Amino acid sequence: MSVARIAVVAGDGIGPEVVAQARKVIDAVLPGVEATEYDLGAARYHRTGEVLPESVQAELAGHDAILLGAVGDPTVPPGVLERGLLLRLRFDFDQYVNLRPSRLWPGTTSPLATVKPGEIDLVVVREGTEGLYAGAGGSLHRDTPAEVATEESLNTRHGVERVIRDAFARAERRERRKVTLVHKTNVLTHAGSLWARAFQAVAAEHPDIETEYQHVDAAAMFLVTQPQRYDVVVTDNLFGDILTDIAAAVSGGIGLAASGSINPERAYPSMFEPVHGSAPDIAGQGVADPAAAVLSAALLLDHLGYSDAATRVTGAVAAELAARTPGAALRTAEVGDRLAAHAAG
Amino acid sequence: MSVARIAVVAGDGIGPEVVAQARKVIDAVLPGVEATEYDLGAARYHRTGEVLPESVQAELAGHDAILLGAVGDPTVPPGVLERGLLLRLRFDFDQYVNLRPSRLWPGTTSPLATVKPGEIDLVVVREGTEGLYAGAGGSLHRDTPAEVATEESLNTRHGVERVIRDAFARAERRERRKVTLVHKTNVLTHAGSLWARAFQAVAAEHPDIETEYQHVDAAAMFLVTQPQRYDVVVTDNLFGDILTDIAAAVSGGIGLAASGSINPERAYPSMFEPVHGSAPDIAGQGVADPAAAVLSAALLLDHLGYSDAATRVTGAVAAELAARTPGAALRTAEVGDRLAAHAAG
Ligand SMILES: CC(C)[C@H](C(=O)O)[C@@H](O)C(=O)O
Ligand SMILES: CC(C)[C@H](C(=O)O)[C@@H](O)C(=O)O
Repeated sequence: MSVARIAVVAGDGIGPEVVAQARKVIDAVLPGVEATEYDLGAARYHRTGEVLPESVQAELAGHDAILLGAVGDPTVPPGVLERGLLLRLRFDFDQYVNLRPSRLWPGTTSPLATVKPGEIDLVVVREGTEGLYAGAGGSLHRDTPAEVATEESLNTRHGVERVIRDAFARAERRERRKVTLVHKTNVLTHAGSLWARAFQAVAAEHPDIETEYQHVDAAAMFLVTQPQRYDVVVTDNLFGDILTDIAAAVSGGIGLAASGSINPERAYPSMFEPVHGSAPDIAGQGVADPAAAVLSAALLLDHLGYSDAATRVTGAVAAELAARTPGAALRTAEVGDRLAAHAAG
Repeated sequence: MSVARIAVVAGDGIGPEVVAQARKVIDAVLPGVEATEYDLGAARYHRTGEVLPESVQAELAGHDAILLGAVGDPTVPPGVLERGLLLRLRFDFDQYVNLRPSRLWPGTTSPLATVKPGEIDLVVVREGTEGLYAGAGGSLHRDTPAEVATEESLNTRHGVERVIRDAFARAERRERRKVTLVHKTNVLTHAGSLWARAFQAVAAEHPDIETEYQHVDAAAMFLVTQPQRYDVVVTDNLFGDILTDIAAAVSGGIGLAASGSINPERAYPSMFEPVHGSAPDIAGQGVADPAAAVLSAALLLDHLGYSDAATRVTGAVAAELAARTPGAALRTAEVGDRLAAHAAG
């Protein structure tokens, strides 16, 4: 039996380039991983019209995890790959924990004048299977002056409580042991009340964890003025989408951001991907930074229970970033080689 | 007949202190304004249990505009004053343009290392009467494991088109003449499509205005990394709530942010208020900065058609900020006196 069976969706643009480095690093720290490539994304869509055939989804379901590079290019109509591939996997594989860590690594700089490397170390636990992403909504009288369009946020105690539980469990394993709930309880009173009550119930089981609540507008502001104050942030699907991009912006930028769409029970495969897109402008030149893809691979290893291997990979990226000359050119494959050697060492 | 009849809701905490300065400045640039004080906010709620009596609302309706200081204190249950007073006025008085300008004034500093005073000058035109603020939603099986809670975003062609029209009209009066639509069309497909189609239709009537579209997560990020790129931003109620706090954070901070909840047709009174809260920690000491309240008064004057007076008030605030020593203490009333003298001069 292999140590893990991984489905690899290299995807479009720089996706294949950065995923190749992530695989090098995984092989270096965990020999024996079985990897199968799946051709999905803009290229396949253009060639065959297919986004995610049933048969491919069934094969993906047989893996322990999915490593994804990036999908999309400007010629695919907006929404096609997002809803047909990324969101479909999140919902069908019940990936209810959308995990987005943000760290300001030594060697990188924040756009914020007063924040120093090492001072930002937060993780957003974003709900991944509910809220406004449920696809509930519709429109009437389209293209007339009487048109009305709705979008409905669906929230269940089941869905809210389990992601809050995950956030507290992660806080238990961190040094600062603090969880911030972000919502908009003063306006979204029904969903807000559900989130607040579920949060209080779970918090009562973790008397050792510090808790706070913030409205989403205040949290968006404090992520800019005091990102140091956050440890674990738990929030709903759409708020998490926005807040994680702010968190990425104030730390090393979206180019260094890793993410996991996780089913913690491992009933289905979880998916790990860098947050940067396919970056068609620099694709094929071998100059894309594989750091975010490699950090995503570390999340994958951690999720599969290989936490020592994950720690070594993260440490290799930290060392690589610390050693960089700001603004200096890099070669994707060379960075991958260095990271693999460092992580293995 | 008076030049304008203004209802003044000084409110709680520092509200009365900063509103007094705004009134000084208004009187200095536009003698003859008739102002009536209304006692609303946390203090009245604690004394009488009332938030907004029908009779008071009817009196407010008879004014040309409302100047509000700040309402609330930590002892009022969350949502009571927000929904019962602020949101109720926005909806009942059809204040569909929620206007939030952000400028990085000379003399102030951004938390962003690379952004220099003068470089940020944007205005968010936030829809104020629809979307997730409509109050449509509910819950079932409350406090059981089967609980479900919904929040519905309601969007009409009527409501969306009129606020987009207002955004383009404002862009026509600005130098850069650019409008950015922010939404999340790849996930909120129904409302997103309505917004995108209405935006295209209005844009076609303004071939001279540059347009762009951004997803809300990308806009949140770019407000941190490149706030200089924005001129007029038009977006829905909840996205606007979040984006305006980011815009405030990257310019002088929420302490300098002015806002207007506007009914452009003047069928109902519009309301103008600083975005900072009642700041109970510094209330009564005479040290609150009245700049945001005075900038809100400028928006009020502009809305009532006194654009020269508005320009003089804004100019006075700009001069005041440019002359300040960063970190130096200020006296609320002295600042108000200086601003009034400068604006009158
Ligand atoms: C591509 C899009 C559907 C997606 C989301 O909104 O979740 C993306 O923004 C993300 O954050 O992963
Ligand atoms: C107080 C609250 C209801 C309000 C809002 O969400 O609109 C506030 O955040 C604002 O931005 O004016």
